[in-house]
Amino acid sequence: MGGGFGGLYAARSLAGAPVSVTLIDKRNYHLFRPMLYQVATGLLSADQISGPLRSILARQRNVEVLMDEVTGIDAQQRLVHLTDGDLPYDYLILATGIQYNYFGHDDWRQDAPGLESLDDADLIRGKVLLAFERAEEMAALGQGTPQEIQQLLTFVLVGAGTVGVEMASTLAEMSRMALAHDFRHIDPRSAQILLYEAAPRVLPTYPQELSAQAQRHLESLGVKVHTNTRVTNVDADGIEADGQRIHAGTVLWGAGVLASPAGRWLGAESDKSGKVIVNADLSVPGHPEVFAIGDTAHVVAPSRNLLGIRSQEPMVLPGVAQPAIQEGEYVAKVIRRRVSGRPAPPPFWYWDKGDLAIVGRIYAVADLRFVRFAGFLGWLLWAVVHVYFLIGFANRFFVVLQWGFAFLTKRRQVRVFPGQERR
Amino acid sequence: MGGGFGGLYAARSLAGAPVSVTLIDKRNYHLFRPMLYQVATGLLSADQISGPLRSILARQRNVEVLMDEVTGIDAQQRLVHLTDGDLPYDYLILATGIQYNYFGHDDWRQDAPGLESLDDADLIRGKVLLAFERAEEMAALGQGTPQEIQQLLTFVLVGAGTVGVEMASTLAEMSRMALAHDFRHIDPRSAQILLYEAAPRVLPTYPQELSAQAQRHLESLGVKVHTNTRVTNVDADGIEADGQRIHAGTVLWGAGVLASPAGRWLGAESDKSGKVIVNADLSVPGHPEVFAIGDTAHVVAPSRNLLGIRSQEPMVLPGVAQPAIQEGEYVAKVIRRRVSGRPAPPPFWYWDKGDLAIVGRIYAVADLRFVRFAGFLGWLLWAVVHVYFLIGFANRFFVVLQWGFAFLTKRRQVRVFPGQERR
Repeated sequence: MGGGFGGLYAARSLAGAPVSVTLIDKRNYHLFRPMLYQVATGLLSADQISGPLRSILARQRNVEVLMDEVTGIDAQQRLVHLTDGDLPYDYLILATGIQYNYFGHDDWRQDAPGLESLDDADLIRGKVLLAFERAEEMAALGQGTPQEIQQLLTFVLVGAGTVGVEMASTLAEMSRMALAHDFRHIDPRSAQILLYEAAPRVLPTYPQELSAQAQRHLESLGVKVHTNTRVTNVDADGIEADGQRIHAGTVLWGAGVLASPAGRWLGAESDKSGKVIVNADLSVPGHPEVFAIGDTAHVVAPSRNLLGIRSQEPMVLPGVAQPAIQEGEYVAKVIRRRVSGRPAPPPFWYWDKGDLAIVGRIYAVADLRFVRFAGFLGWLLWAVVHVYFLIGFANRFFVVLQWGFAFLTKRRQVRVFPGQERR
Repeated sequence: MGGGFGGLYAARSLAGAPVSVTLIDKRNYHLFRPMLYQVATGLLSADQISGPLRSILARQRNVEVLMDEVTGIDAQQRLVHLTDGDLPYDYLILATGIQYNYFGHDDWRQDAPGLESLDDADLIRGKVLLAFERAEEMAALGQGTPQEIQQLLTFVLVGAGTVGVEMASTLAEMSRMALAHDFRHIDPRSAQILLYEAAPRVLPTYPQELSAQAQRHLESLGVKVHTNTRVTNVDADGIEADGQRIHAGTVLWGAGVLASPAGRWLGAESDKSGKVIVNADLSVPGHPEVFAIGDTAHVVAPSRNLLGIRSQEPMVLPGVAQPAIQEGEYVAKVIRRRVSGRPAPPPFWYWDKGDLAIVGRIYAVADLRFVRFAGFLGWLLWAVVHVYFLIGFANRFFVVLQWGFAFLTKRRQVRVFPGQERR
């Protein structure tokens, strides 16, 4: 299993069970992805939204952590293939996550990085700040035309899902507030933030009214929103959208996801983004000892909302933290019962607490299913929920302080970018 | 000028003067180098000991910051050559810093990185933690001989100056405390920390009695200290010291420094580490409008200690923060007077506040010239001085909290290593 939300909660829920758990991840840390955009835009530092898997699980004696990457699975022999060797299993929980989908154009990745890991966050932070630095230097040395400088200060975001919207609003506020007085030859407030979405509205998985409110708020921050617009090309010079060329110094990607090849490894049926279609107990059809959870699984399950009301129809669970956590805990329960010879638990159902998306420094949209709202109250809810869930072990406390500080001063304190020095 | 201590304090001291100051640095941040080892060993995060130069200087209207690298100087035309263009000057302050000196073996750098920048700190943190991860995985998968695993857990430090001693003691404490319970197949306490020094004692620039106390404390932490021992080769497999081969998974470099090529650019006389030998007013001989400070300059100056007592003889100023700061402030004064037509200030003298070196979690040696001591009191002094000087703007506060936390729990909270994931 991996060290994301699904894998970590599964491992934790197996505490005390008569099993030996091995958690495998190619990174040595658990990442609190919902706040990753804050690292990418320099509000928090990488260490504050991540924790070493080893120390998170240090006290749970039946768990060990291996830092390696899964390269394949031999379901007959019950072996996981790693880069450095093979590991046998009795039960296997696949929580191997996703990547952004460049729709067959993997060469776009270089010019339009997506925000997936701490490395990406560092890279994006550096890219954005370096664009301002280059523009300032060109203006200072009298180089470049005004058009070239404006191009450097043009930031394109492809995809208006949660990450795209978070990044767009944060970049807009950054250039209008935090950076506003730091430069002498350019005005960071002249930066253009362009958000492109192929669907008819931003946050397409949210209710229509919240999408509309989010779009209005983005526009009030100065973000130019282009919906119904498909990006047809990306290169070092910018993008092409609906046949029109947009010159931009920085392009960031937040569109579409592609699951890990877990389905292929098992020869199991997958949906179009590669997620394994699982049984009602989250096991992989034909392999009762193998489970898929989180972004590795296509789960259709009954749900109840915060008021306990059952939904009319089963829902396809979204690729966010809550389903992964609940699936991880459920699979742990299935395994505990099976090893102790007790009957299987009832099929998995999802406790649907709703969705939250940040659209500005103090603005978020909230869909709690039984009620929807947007604005400061949404942000407050977002902040409380995220700080609470930030599996932070000491980090939690510092994050709150740092937020409070940034909130009061409207400045971002964390703006260095190691790894991006000029050589 | 650069954005280290010298350049930054020179720029600040020119506030309000009728001059336009341009600070040039290839990085966009000022780095509090005395605490860099804490990032390399995972106690602090990079953002906590660095601040963006732009925001540090944002309110000083006569300063601008350019992110670029100086590639040469044309002293006749009074031009600074940058990677991206030329910049004219009336006065020039060279504060271009140092690099580690591999004594002509630049190929050793790859196998034995030095700790100079935030990038290096990230790299070293990753290297050290990855060694433990690899050893754990080899033991878990039944691969490798005990010797091979022990080699992975062997850490060599070349050079027992302040950085070498800081790193050795921190690595020793990390493996014996913070990491002690995180692994299942290896015992991090079996890690070997080997410290090599060509001089007869550790901290060779300190008084003999403090060196002896530091060495005893290092040994009590489990560090194996080898003085009078020259490292004659470095490769991916370890080192050769006095003709003997030492197998080690990780080699870190902290020996010798080499100044930037500023002396060569100017055709000025330099000492053997490349520092420009300057006049009594810190100007470069033959170029009264060019000054060299900090690690770029070889300064021999009269000094007074904390009690105000003058030293008998002028001293060669060491390459630490205090001389750089005082030189920066002094040069700013020289320039202010010169542009306003006032007489030059008296020659530079150094206010020698002494030296402090950390040798353990709560142990430091202090040489305040009029008094010397080692132990917890030294550490307390070190902590107070460094927190006070940490040009942190909000960082200061968080660092103290984080230290307090680590101190109470004996755990390190920051142990992730972005940029080191396994692919």
